[in-house]
Amino acid sequence: MNAPFVSPIQDLLDDLHARLIEQRAGEVATYIPELGKADPEWFGLAVATLDGTVYEAGDSRVPFTIQSVSKPFVYALALQDRGLPDVLKQVGVEPTGDAFNAVRLEPYTGRPYNPMVNAGAIVTSTLVGGDTYEERRERILSGLSAFAGRELVVDHKVMDSEAATGDRNRALAYLMHGAGTLTCDVEESLRLYFEQCAALVTTTDLAVMTATLAGGGINPLTGETVVSVEAAAHALTVMATCGTYDYAGEWLVRAGLPAKSGVSGGLIAALPSQLGLGLFSPRLDPRGNSVRGVAACEELSQRFGLHLMRPAERSGPVFHRTLRGDTAHSSRVRAHDERTALARLGSAIRVYVLRGDLAFSSAEAVVRTISEDTGSVRWVVLDLKRAGRVTSVAETLLEGLAAKLKERGITTVVVDTEQGVTIPSAVISETRDAALEWCEDALLEAEGASRMTVPLAEQDLLRSLDPFLVTALEAYLEPREYAPGERLIEDVAALCFIISGGLARQFMVGTPPRPVRETSMGPGTAVGRLALIDDAEHTHRIVAESPTSCLVLTTRELARLERDSPRLADSLRWSIANAIAARLRRTDAENHALIH
Amino acid sequence: MNAPFVSPIQDLLDDLHARLIEQRAGEVATYIPELGKADPEWFGLAVATLDGTVYEAGDSRVPFTIQSVSKPFVYALALQDRGLPDVLKQVGVEPTGDAFNAVRLEPYTGRPYNPMVNAGAIVTSTLVGGDTYEERRERILSGLSAFAGRELVVDHKVMDSEAATGDRNRALAYLMHGAGTLTCDVEESLRLYFEQCAALVTTTDLAVMTATLAGGGINPLTGETVVSVEAAAHALTVMATCGTYDYAGEWLVRAGLPAKSGVSGGLIAALPSQLGLGLFSPRLDPRGNSVRGVAACEELSQRFGLHLMRPAERSGPVFHRTLRGDTAHSSRVRAHDERTALARLGSAIRVYVLRGDLAFSSAEAVVRTISEDTGSVRWVVLDLKRAGRVTSVAETLLEGLAAKLKERGITTVVVDTEQGVTIPSAVISETRDAALEWCEDALLEAEGASRMTVPLAEQDLLRSLDPFLVTALEAYLEPREYAPGERLIEDVAALCFIISGGLARQFMVGTPPRPVRETSMGPGTAVGRLALIDDAEHTHRIVAESPTSCLVLTTRELARLERDSPRLADSLRWSIANAIAARLRRTDAENHALIH
Repeated sequence: MNAPFVSPIQDLLDDLHARLIEQRAGEVATYIPELGKADPEWFGLAVATLDGTVYEAGDSRVPFTIQSVSKPFVYALALQDRGLPDVLKQVGVEPTGDAFNAVRLEPYTGRPYNPMVNAGAIVTSTLVGGDTYEERRERILSGLSAFAGRELVVDHKVMDSEAATGDRNRALAYLMHGAGTLTCDVEESLRLYFEQCAALVTTTDLAVMTATLAGGGINPLTGETVVSVEAAAHALTVMATCGTYDYAGEWLVRAGLPAKSGVSGGLIAALPSQLGLGLFSPRLDPRGNSVRGVAACEELSQRFGLHLMRPAERSGPVFHRTLRGDTAHSSRVRAHDERTALARLGSAIRVYVLRGDLAFSSAEAVVRTISEDTGSVRWVVLDLKRAGRVTSVAETLLEGLAAKLKERGITTVVVDTEQGVTIPSAVISETRDAALEWCEDALLEAEGASRMTVPLAEQDLLRSLDPFLVTALEAYLEPREYAPGERLIEDVAALCFIISGGLARQFMVGTPPRPVRETSMGPGTAVGRLALIDDAEHTHRIVAESPTSCLVLTTRELARLERDSPRLADSLRWSIANAIAARLRRTDAENHALIH
Repeated sequence: MNAPFVSPIQDLLDDLHARLIEQRAGEVATYIPELGKADPEWFGLAVATLDGTVYEAGDSRVPFTIQSVSKPFVYALALQDRGLPDVLKQVGVEPTGDAFNAVRLEPYTGRPYNPMVNAGAIVTSTLVGGDTYEERRERILSGLSAFAGRELVVDHKVMDSEAATGDRNRALAYLMHGAGTLTCDVEESLRLYFEQCAALVTTTDLAVMTATLAGGGINPLTGETVVSVEAAAHALTVMATCGTYDYAGEWLVRAGLPAKSGVSGGLIAALPSQLGLGLFSPRLDPRGNSVRGVAACEELSQRFGLHLMRPAERSGPVFHRTLRGDTAHSSRVRAHDERTALARLGSAIRVYVLRGDLAFSSAEAVVRTISEDTGSVRWVVLDLKRAGRVTSVAETLLEGLAAKLKERGITTVVVDTEQGVTIPSAVISETRDAALEWCEDALLEAEGASRMTVPLAEQDLLRSLDPFLVTALEAYLEPREYAPGERLIEDVAALCFIISGGLARQFMVGTPPRPVRETSMGPGTAVGRLALIDDAEHTHRIVAESPTSCLVLTTRELARLERDSPRLADSLRWSIANAIAARLRRTDAENHALIH
């Protein structure tokens, strides 16, 4: 029962491996003699995620020469070093429906059709950065190593074997040299290409290399930026249209993933933003694709729902919740007058809590919904804390919204910490509570409903008390001033009425402990109330947020009060219990607003 | 300042239209004489979202004949009617790098290479359901209309013009008839194809038709399922590889969207799961693609971040929050013993609140993280309420996780309402609170820590009271029994001690109002407590959830108690205030746990 937990993904790979290993159709390639020595039974599978987790099955650690699977990676390196326009001048990106070794160039330009056929790949190798053969050779090997996240080496036996037998590639290279497309020395160019093809990799390497392309050029193991987002995207695109030669169209219909196969039995497939697949089995079908590799990849695509053109099965609503400032409040404890003002005017504050990923369509829905409901609104809080990915188009659209709202005097506050979105026209806040408090303050200020100073008689706890008792209480209170950041010692202050300024309640988090602001209290409210009723320990600390004036009932004075005037002490206590009951009721009411 | 709110998306379209209308390169097609009558200045743009919102700019309502843009839609209809294998037998899916009217068939099969070139499209039209020319004609026109969400008509002038001049298409058809690929009557087949091409559409129609493909075959305006998810995905795939003829490869590199162009100046592009674009402007580049359409589409792709192969810029964490049952509790009000047991044993309950879309990679992270931390865990709550899209692969992986957890005695509870996920090995719950309560009950039951009956002296409110006072209080209490569903009349019951069974607090929501369970209370706890302190109105109702025995202090008896024994009344009141303070403290502590 307590065997190690095997992931369902691992199960699926193991099951796939067990089933497809029975598949023995196809032939090991022999046109490069050294390749013929491969064990036809080898079969490796690997899935690499963008956060660097790798699932493997079978012979995933057996090294083999990368061959044509190197093409998209070297193409990405060339794009990185030269840019798309320069590379396009020498190698096209059009699928041809031709076989991998076709001898055909574009009629007018003499360009090879695309970088996935041998002709195109030979030219592409010469386009990576470097002025000499040695520099380019070094760039290719270190570049492929950066994709794999480890130092790769070249199998010189295979390389020599290919160099000795590569008649057709040699013919292609001379043809292109004649056409002016291949500008480097023909033999050096071929050597460069054969060397690139003879780099030794494992199935796991292939998965990681492909995950690097899927992740926008960032290696998920090392975190290194190997190529730019553009270079990675373009390489994936060419894999999608030309990656499996004359099977490319049907491949994309069936598997729905950009892919690249090689003559040694390697196969890669990528799902952008999601994962890289590596597959390896030497027996090939007549088109030169690994039989087991293709079967495994098609099945993985189906089982994992990876087809690029298929919409997600269900899409949830983009709004997790919408709140209004008259029924949902920040945790700031406010005096009666401010509470009343917020209940009356708070509908000018709207809070939208978003969920799910924010790409074009979800951001469009957000912009549309919010802009349809701006009548009496003056503050909009967009809570992105529950959103997943935020794309740059979502940023653009939300910035467009914030800018337009600003034009009509509506302030946008974006709640976001981890993701660091860029929305210049909005105020950024770390928590929804802080955002709401900020909007409430702004609303109260704008409406002239802020209470800056609340005298003792109007304090929430004392409003319903006989004025005679309030006067009597005053004799037991001491005025205290707190500077911003100064901490209240609660052992001393049994009850502290805030006359002006404000206090925050903090609790300590993490190691070493750092204070986190939990809530705050404004003029007219009091702290220390619970201590008057029970004596459980305080887990928080109270700190002044601005210059703050209080009237404090110390524990010593409280004892004197209880002795001198039990009736006053009782009234006070009763008033506190009432205030607590009211606060609980408000909390319940807010919960209603939240569940709605 | 209060002009109607213009969406930033609309702004972007208007801006694009204003800039690109200056672009006057290219020529209006004249090979079909009627097409030459088009106004070269026409320029329409439209974006349709999957929820049926359409943004338009320029001449988006000018009708024109659909021409080749019909090809992917009719291909989808053929796939829907015949299935991929049968369609593949007669039309390939390989890109060729050939022009749209190329006269070239596959060497051995005699198939046209793909359904986007004219040869393939002519055969495709004959593959839609229907035994006669008339039936197929009807199927195509009604199918295209279903894609557009309105009744389309054919421009017979253009059709006749094309029929009179379509020498090359006629040649192709005869060639394929000779090769045995085109099995229907040649002239009828051509007529069918010319008629399809002459269907009148607007730019807006194109956007909606394309959004139908992007949305898995469901028309976003009518909600009609026009073709299956598979047929839609396959049509999009063929658009990706072959949609713009010999520009298809470079198009996909630049715009990164499956697309299709037509000789009348129409152009469509789709982003699966997101949107459909329609563009129209009659001047064509030498490859037969609308000059302004291509420019607008490439710019929209860039500005909106639509490139299929580009990963989202940032990905947020998949866990919004994780909670443990010893520090976070359901809202159920439990007696002291149960609270103590949960504080001690509750870490066996883990709550994972997920966010963002759940596709392969995020679901993989969920499975991995949870399975790495199963040591002492016995209940896992997966809260999907904040998640966005849930793909079927995510369902598969979560079901795999739940099944494996079950094997080791761990129960999974999935919180999900709107989306209706299918995870057979998990318990489904509507709210996180209910899920947590369920797990707490199961834990207490399993640990023998459930309190089924709590006598008066052990009630939470009375634990700290002098036993003599408890006995005195008993004289004022009445035993009451409530059947499941029975409502407590609170006017009568000032305070109600739950001896066994349980009560729920409900509030009313919606029109007509229906009760929503807010929280529940178990044996050892009391309801009506706040009413003893203040007299604000109750907004909720209390209902028995199981056969429940209570001891009730009615308002009349409370009055008698106050009169007879003020000391007892006072102690009782004090005890209640204490209990409330403790509850507030607990709420604060839970907030700490939540902020962590």
